[in-house]
Amino acid sequence: MSAFENLMAHARQTAALAQIAGRLGWDQETMMPPGAAAQRGQEMAAIEAVLHARRSDPQLGEWLAEARAPDAVGAAHLREIRRAYDRACKVPGDLASKLAQVTSEAQGKWARARADEDVAAFLPVLDEVVRLRREEGAALAEGGDLYDALLQDYEPGTTAAQIAEIFDAMRPRLVALRAAVLDRPAPQGIRGTFDPAAQMRLAREVALAFGYDLNRGRIDTAVHPFSSGSGADVRITTRTAETDPFNCLYSTIHEVGHAAYEQNVSPDLALTALGHGVSMGVHESQSRIYENQLGRSRAFTGWLYGRMRDAFGDFGINGEDAFHAAVNRVHDGFIRTEADEVQYNLHIMLRFDLERALMTGDLGVGDLEAAWNDRFKADFGYAVDRPSNGVLQDVHWSVGLFGYFPTYALGNVYAGCLHQALRRDVPDLDDHLARGVTEPATAWLREAVQQHGAVYVPRAVIERASGMAPSEGPLLDYLDAKFGALYQV
Amino acid sequence: MSAFENLMAHARQTAALAQIAGRLGWDQETMMPPGAAAQRGQEMAAIEAVLHARRSDPQLGEWLAEARAPDAVGAAHLREIRRAYDRACKVPGDLASKLAQVTSEAQGKWARARADEDVAAFLPVLDEVVRLRREEGAALAEGGDLYDALLQDYEPGTTAAQIAEIFDAMRPRLVALRAAVLDRPAPQGIRGTFDPAAQMRLAREVALAFGYDLNRGRIDTAVHPFSSGSGADVRITTRTAETDPFNCLYSTIHEVGHAAYEQNVSPDLALTALGHGVSMGVHESQSRIYENQLGRSRAFTGWLYGRMRDAFGDFGINGEDAFHAAVNRVHDGFIRTEADEVQYNLHIMLRFDLERALMTGDLGVGDLEAAWNDRFKADFGYAVDRPSNGVLQDVHWSVGLFGYFPTYALGNVYAGCLHQALRRDVPDLDDHLARGVTEPATAWLREAVQQHGAVYVPRAVIERASGMAPSEGPLLDYLDAKFGALYQV
Repeated sequence: MSAFENLMAHARQTAALAQIAGRLGWDQETMMPPGAAAQRGQEMAAIEAVLHARRSDPQLGEWLAEARAPDAVGAAHLREIRRAYDRACKVPGDLASKLAQVTSEAQGKWARARADEDVAAFLPVLDEVVRLRREEGAALAEGGDLYDALLQDYEPGTTAAQIAEIFDAMRPRLVALRAAVLDRPAPQGIRGTFDPAAQMRLAREVALAFGYDLNRGRIDTAVHPFSSGSGADVRITTRTAETDPFNCLYSTIHEVGHAAYEQNVSPDLALTALGHGVSMGVHESQSRIYENQLGRSRAFTGWLYGRMRDAFGDFGINGEDAFHAAVNRVHDGFIRTEADEVQYNLHIMLRFDLERALMTGDLGVGDLEAAWNDRFKADFGYAVDRPSNGVLQDVHWSVGLFGYFPTYALGNVYAGCLHQALRRDVPDLDDHLARGVTEPATAWLREAVQQHGAVYVPRAVIERASGMAPSEGPLLDYLDAKFGALYQV
Repeated sequence: MSAFENLMAHARQTAALAQIAGRLGWDQETMMPPGAAAQRGQEMAAIEAVLHARRSDPQLGEWLAEARAPDAVGAAHLREIRRAYDRACKVPGDLASKLAQVTSEAQGKWARARADEDVAAFLPVLDEVVRLRREEGAALAEGGDLYDALLQDYEPGTTAAQIAEIFDAMRPRLVALRAAVLDRPAPQGIRGTFDPAAQMRLAREVALAFGYDLNRGRIDTAVHPFSSGSGADVRITTRTAETDPFNCLYSTIHEVGHAAYEQNVSPDLALTALGHGVSMGVHESQSRIYENQLGRSRAFTGWLYGRMRDAFGDFGINGEDAFHAAVNRVHDGFIRTEADEVQYNLHIMLRFDLERALMTGDLGVGDLEAAWNDRFKADFGYAVDRPSNGVLQDVHWSVGLFGYFPTYALGNVYAGCLHQALRRDVPDLDDHLARGVTEPATAWLREAVQQHGAVYVPRAVIERASGMAPSEGPLLDYLDAKFGALYQV
């Protein structure tokens, strides 16, 4: 076998083992008996050790030095294999183990600190996590920007400067839109209780309407909704809240967006280094365009209103327009995961600026809470009332995820670009959505984005699909138009 | 670290990976989407390749040459690690791959041949499987008996001659008991339909009554009942048939016997080479004593009769004695898995003699069907009517499992020995069983057998627990007494 063929065979086996590790994660959140947690930790450590050894196998270095790609897709395989190999080799084994151990402890300490509203109790371990991730970033950056180096794990080929340029342009327009909308009377909300089993039946119907393939997937309930797996086995979870059926339905549509990306990667790429979504940002663009631009559109909510009435009878909303307004209600709140389309990105930009300052060393963890609270007051107009509603609300930093947050908002920006192009290419899309048919949109996304897996780097995916470099303009224009009409601002 | 400590660390990681492979098997039978089968095949192959590479790692040979065990349990660890290493090294890689490939094809061909009642269509691939397994047996035996060599995978430390001595003593007594019992009028069977959900609720209650720990396990439905996993994550499956609740209930008790063995291994042995049941035979002794000697006893069925009446109302049986007779009904039939306590071992002995002759070369696959049919007629008194009721009924030989069948009957023999000792040590056991309480029996088995995992070899387990070398006497005496009373013979 040639060096290239050897690399491909090695990558296939690594990809298969990574699928197994992912499925263990799914099992842990859905099926695992509670008493199995400690043993599962050892099992996960064992398969992660196998994966790490494979990714840093010196044999890969020899093959990579020799390998010649037969074509452009082959070159993309080599790019991804090389990236994983370089990353695995650059970080000293001791540092990787120490990070795994400290972040595992830190997650527990964060959960207790949040429950106790005790920031001080969390700061020492957070400081240690920050120190270790800066050390890792420095090892990866080799003299370059260490936040940029960390970002490559989540959004390869994208720099913090590129993100900052987009975010800086977004912030004033979103702050202004938010203030204008919240100055107007709130639309009516839904009322009543909604049978969880009926919510799950409707969620299943909606998942199928968005093209989720249940022959290669399944839907279960879990504490946090997620999508897991690639190719022929992509599972999603959702959850039900008795007074809020939108939580179940829109979590399902969001996860179907992620799952569709993984299910629709070309079978030629299955179980290779390219057989999955290319980045967190592009992944989020799929989940968000399914959830928001399609799922919360006037046309689709018109159809959903009828199905909700069939399933639940009267819930205090009369007519499709009022239902569309209820689905898109803008409301005050401290919590990122509960934020609406207008305010969500403000939560992200706050985190991006703070975590970047933590990584560059411009901000110490001792000043983090004050910096968070000042920024929140500036953008949202009211003060954080307690740490669990502020700096302690997210798990991410405790587990060392610095560089991850911005990809949520990047996903929204990408979704804006893709949506603009989709509407141009499918001018009668609303006629379909109004009948609960998403196929013209999902087929366009499958063709333009999903089938390519990780063949193209994130910015290239968006440029090829939308005909433009990623930019905040289309998203902001869409939000202004939508919420301008809904709130008459 | 010393060579011994290195071996232990290596074994822990291998054991964790083996748990993962087992859990994938569980997922495949219970949760996996149907369209994921081909991808799952590649995932299983990837983790099996990792396990094989670990087991034949030359580093193990160096450590094994140096290692000194600190105590008797340490010596047992070395014994099991050495056994797996020697086995992995003795079989050439090409032969192992060829066997995996041919048995995978053979299973499909067997399923089609069984559906078509076409023995001739199965014989060429069976011949190839037999040839490859003989080759493997010869590599393992290194000049010794090749069937004995294959047997070591399932019942280490036991020889075919030892098994034959036991089986030869059993056969005439079982043939005679069977003929005498079937000469008597059949007891009344149960009548009616039994709600599957109510069957599952009662199965769960019965599983708990037998000590199954749901905090470290779970019960699902699958086509074939099985138990999967060790230590803190041991899952079982069962199935329901609307007119036969005993299928669900006694499959559950049987699998709880297997699961209890795995759940009750000492935590000190968790995720090591000794952290699971020692052999198929000892495993089957646990499932069978739970299912038969305890679960089908007059005392326990007296309690179960009340619970069945509570759950299902009238089902055509009046009184505990009639219920006990119905549960223990002896009936004609061709199929091993549906056989009763009296006849089950006759099905096994037939297969043991035939597969041993296939392995020694005394029997060719061309003569297998005739040999099966002659033997069946001799022991059961009537002729096999079609191949799916005869030589094509079991999957085992198609997947190369030669040496596995006798462990089913050995398990019954071991259960007989253990039951005799248990009754001696717990004279008032029936008083407990009559109230649905199995704890005195399960505690005895946990102490005597289950906690030790694979520390002692199978024959030593039975000798230590029952005070006698494995022998058919106690089982036959138990069967004569029980069915003699039930059928008045």
